[in-house]
Amino acid sequence: MILDRINGPKNLKTLSASERKELAQEIRQAMLKRASIHGGHFGPDFGIVEATIALHTVFDSPKDKIVWDVSHQVYPHKILTGRKQAYLEEEHYDDVSGYSNPAESEHDFFEVGHTSTSISLASGLAMARDLRGGHENIIAVIGDGSMSGGEALEGLDTVGEMGTNMIIVLNDNQMSIAEVHGGMYKGFDELRRTGGKSEHNLFRAMGLDYRFVADGNDSEALIKVFREVKDIDHPVVVHIVTQKGKGYKFAEEDKESWHWHMPFDIETGEVKHPYVDEAAELTATYLLDRMKTDKKLAVLTAATPSSFGFTSERRKQAGKQFIDVGIAEEQAVAMASGLAKGGARPVFGDYATFFQRTYDQISQDVCINNNPAVFLVFGASMYSMNDVTHLCIFDIPMMANIPNLVYLAPVSLAEYKAMLAWALDQTEHPVAIRVPVLPVPSEGRVIRTDYSQLNTYEVTRRGEEVAILGLGNFYGLAEQTAAELEKKGIHATIINPTYITGLDTDLLESLKKDHRLVVTMEDGVLDGGFGEKIARFYGSSDMKTCAFGLEKKFYDRYDYEKLAEEYNLKPELAAKKILDLIK
Amino acid sequence: MILDRINGPKNLKTLSASERKELAQEIRQAMLKRASIHGGHFGPDFGIVEATIALHTVFDSPKDKIVWDVSHQVYPHKILTGRKQAYLEEEHYDDVSGYSNPAESEHDFFEVGHTSTSISLASGLAMARDLRGGHENIIAVIGDGSMSGGEALEGLDTVGEMGTNMIIVLNDNQMSIAEVHGGMYKGFDELRRTGGKSEHNLFRAMGLDYRFVADGNDSEALIKVFREVKDIDHPVVVHIVTQKGKGYKFAEEDKESWHWHMPFDIETGEVKHPYVDEAAELTATYLLDRMKTDKKLAVLTAATPSSFGFTSERRKQAGKQFIDVGIAEEQAVAMASGLAKGGARPVFGDYATFFQRTYDQISQDVCINNNPAVFLVFGASMYSMNDVTHLCIFDIPMMANIPNLVYLAPVSLAEYKAMLAWALDQTEHPVAIRVPVLPVPSEGRVIRTDYSQLNTYEVTRRGEEVAILGLGNFYGLAEQTAAELEKKGIHATIINPTYITGLDTDLLESLKKDHRLVVTMEDGVLDGGFGEKIARFYGSSDMKTCAFGLEKKFYDRYDYEKLAEEYNLKPELAAKKILDLIK
Repeated sequence: MILDRINGPKNLKTLSASERKELAQEIRQAMLKRASIHGGHFGPDFGIVEATIALHTVFDSPKDKIVWDVSHQVYPHKILTGRKQAYLEEEHYDDVSGYSNPAESEHDFFEVGHTSTSISLASGLAMARDLRGGHENIIAVIGDGSMSGGEALEGLDTVGEMGTNMIIVLNDNQMSIAEVHGGMYKGFDELRRTGGKSEHNLFRAMGLDYRFVADGNDSEALIKVFREVKDIDHPVVVHIVTQKGKGYKFAEEDKESWHWHMPFDIETGEVKHPYVDEAAELTATYLLDRMKTDKKLAVLTAATPSSFGFTSERRKQAGKQFIDVGIAEEQAVAMASGLAKGGARPVFGDYATFFQRTYDQISQDVCINNNPAVFLVFGASMYSMNDVTHLCIFDIPMMANIPNLVYLAPVSLAEYKAMLAWALDQTEHPVAIRVPVLPVPSEGRVIRTDYSQLNTYEVTRRGEEVAILGLGNFYGLAEQTAAELEKKGIHATIINPTYITGLDTDLLESLKKDHRLVVTMEDGVLDGGFGEKIARFYGSSDMKTCAFGLEKKFYDRYDYEKLAEEYNLKPELAAKKILDLIK
Repeated sequence: MILDRINGPKNLKTLSASERKELAQEIRQAMLKRASIHGGHFGPDFGIVEATIALHTVFDSPKDKIVWDVSHQVYPHKILTGRKQAYLEEEHYDDVSGYSNPAESEHDFFEVGHTSTSISLASGLAMARDLRGGHENIIAVIGDGSMSGGEALEGLDTVGEMGTNMIIVLNDNQMSIAEVHGGMYKGFDELRRTGGKSEHNLFRAMGLDYRFVADGNDSEALIKVFREVKDIDHPVVVHIVTQKGKGYKFAEEDKESWHWHMPFDIETGEVKHPYVDEAAELTATYLLDRMKTDKKLAVLTAATPSSFGFTSERRKQAGKQFIDVGIAEEQAVAMASGLAKGGARPVFGDYATFFQRTYDQISQDVCINNNPAVFLVFGASMYSMNDVTHLCIFDIPMMANIPNLVYLAPVSLAEYKAMLAWALDQTEHPVAIRVPVLPVPSEGRVIRTDYSQLNTYEVTRRGEEVAILGLGNFYGLAEQTAAELEKKGIHATIINPTYITGLDTDLLESLKKDHRLVVTMEDGVLDGGFGEKIARFYGSSDMKTCAFGLEKKFYDRYDYEKLAEEYNLKPELAAKKILDLIK
């Protein structure tokens, strides 16, 4: 195997063209086997193999610095920079993260996982080099899908004014996770059709130089162009056309499903343990059904349609009532405000971690204007994505402290559905819903269908001494903790707070009569969260409070159960802590 | 006066060309007098007079919908849409806000004040129209400076794919607040020089149609082109070249100073009550001085250099150590991360309200990577900008709940300077500083120069029974409240918490010995803030807590003193509330 000889980029420099071809083959082989067993990103890595070989052949990493956008295409890079074991040996598959990671290698400069950041980050490296008086090459590798993100476009504009070395490799595989969307892609299309000669060139319009490589899966063509731009004295875009999923038939044919993939059978491409996201399914079927009678219902995604069940088939069914704005969360939220103002009923769904892109738009474009847009916040839980760049545990501090927003926490799928219906029926408030993360019960616990009396909590069981407020996903934990307490003779009150964004002051006041401890349980970090609001409310009274949730911290690839234990987020542990407090 | 006859856009339709010219003159006259007495935005409004007349002559507002970006150029629009009294009669100057405002008029669609939102908001109105089956024109008016913002570029991309009516008026006055920055402006420059014919056309590259008007201060030329694009069936950009500040000599000559202006003498252009922002002055002089010996110090602004004292003269002095990325806050923060990683020492300064654009970049690009960028958060106080779109009271919940960030709250300018020096000396943490808003003392209270022992609060006076934590700007209030308490025989402990992002648990624990109430005072909203962290810490103990600060709400053009009274943010009122709690 060629790979046997590759322990770092320096081993690449002397390979022949045919050896590079063989090496590409070996890398795909290793990645295929690993993906079939371990799962992970697929299409982006299979498309970028030759470009990675070419980059490390021409440039001198880590002196020359390569910044990978999103970094879900970074597997070949990891293989070539000393981490091949994690792709070749099953027992080492988990030695590396799924993203670029400076803790793993000097060839990685940033830990990233959100899109559209590479140009901005690289522009900083370039300016630092210039202040230092250095001469290395700074390279950003960014996909066509990521180019639609505001941060990338802002970065392009800054780079377009810089007068020094900076190389942006546009990896154009004609896809985002799903198909690309936006006017710029007409331009990219023309560039592909004209061999880079079309005058509709976003990069030249932004002040950058430009090169085109028709076959971005041809290492030799890439090496030629990379050699030409190496040590260039001004910013240049190298536009390379690659095939997403290249080398594995099923991934070439269905690029969307194979962007990221669960473990599968290599022969058939069949998923080993099929999994249906019930919350996403419920959302898509409900919205599609509602569209039939409500022609002003508009569903928006920022390039993650599958996060809420909008498969390509369903997108077709929705027709012009569904819009994918591309990776452009700010646009999605602001557009939703415009839609609401214009009399439509907009729903924007995305993962909690990506809502982080939209703080200002939620605050300014939507909430100051009090336009009734609806936001579905998916995956918001510690039992969700556990890569540090994809944590979904910060949404409560971020969103629940924005005025005018009504942020709801359903405790079951049935309650989620009732809230979604209400949110779309009413036009008084911008509403966000923290979509349940399983396991929550599918049925039951829908006490009402009208949520317009804001900040009215539901007492689901009247007890005494201790009251437990179980927010959203953690309502079940509250019930189970109460059951543990029952064994010790404490008959606790159980409450479904329902509203994250406000306090039911009457109810909280009334608890003072016959309770001496109010406990909150929330599925996220405590800092800036729901429990702290309750603590402040009771601060000057005799009522004691205790907030269960996570410490403010960037957790990475954690074990869910261990983390739950560490923070007493298990019924027995929580009950024990409560008993300690009241004894 | 022509203006006498103008009570709404319909009165414009029958004017002759010469009457339009006269009207423009009258509008400038009214705005000049008002600005000289009242202050406010200047240059943007003086440049857009003819375009506003032309828009309201050709289009049928409010059926046709005009969305004004930032809306600091909206004075002529307000004059022509039924609100002229507020510009003609001194006693009515305050009847209108400085921004577009749906509460004032059916001709205003959104309350906005942050830049780069008009295209996104308008795209929502356009899609809503299409779902409704309507046929009106949707128009976004955006300045060239605002085009560099990510939200605007994302919006452009979405619009470029839409197949229906949408008109974007690019008001190119070759300025942001300061001069424009970014590669796209080379393209705009070429378009101006070639009469719109250059092939470096950002808008065509994004899939939009394009028209050019060389003299955007010629109503007749504008009317001609607006008539051509009215009812167009696809998205088009109308690029108009205008003169910022047109019609007032001083504003034409010094566009940056006259973007917004305080009351002045019309004859001389002299400010009536000159004002020096001490915190900004201190910042600029300190950084400029440090640059002399530290060649890796890089100062960044996102188009608001004056927010921290970087006048054009000082920008020149700073040379390549100062970079203005244009209106592109995401880029500024991510670039700062890259600079820090590359060994430079980046400082990015901006108003608190604009940091709202950068939640995800602070979290992902900077804090996950723990890169030691320094952020200076200006104006963060209730005693700061009081327009609803410019409130600077939400930064603590937004920023202080992001892991790894060290957010410092100096209690004097001297302490601010010590913190800034430390932040730049160290390379362990990303650091943000909540720059003091006056009145805080200039001198005194610098107890240390080293802040690396995180979350160690300073007890500035040891007392008993009551402890008051006075955060940053409100440290003075804490001291004055303690003085009031002293009169009633309470010798309170006074503490400078210094760190917003963490608790001094040892100190807090020690207070339990001889205190029964811990009071926090913070200059911002309480929800998600500092006081709630203290309340949670003591929640399960016998210690009582009380948090002074503002309720979560979008305040608008409020009276500072009244608001302070309403929330007991006056020494006597705070002392009374404290006494009530401990009696």
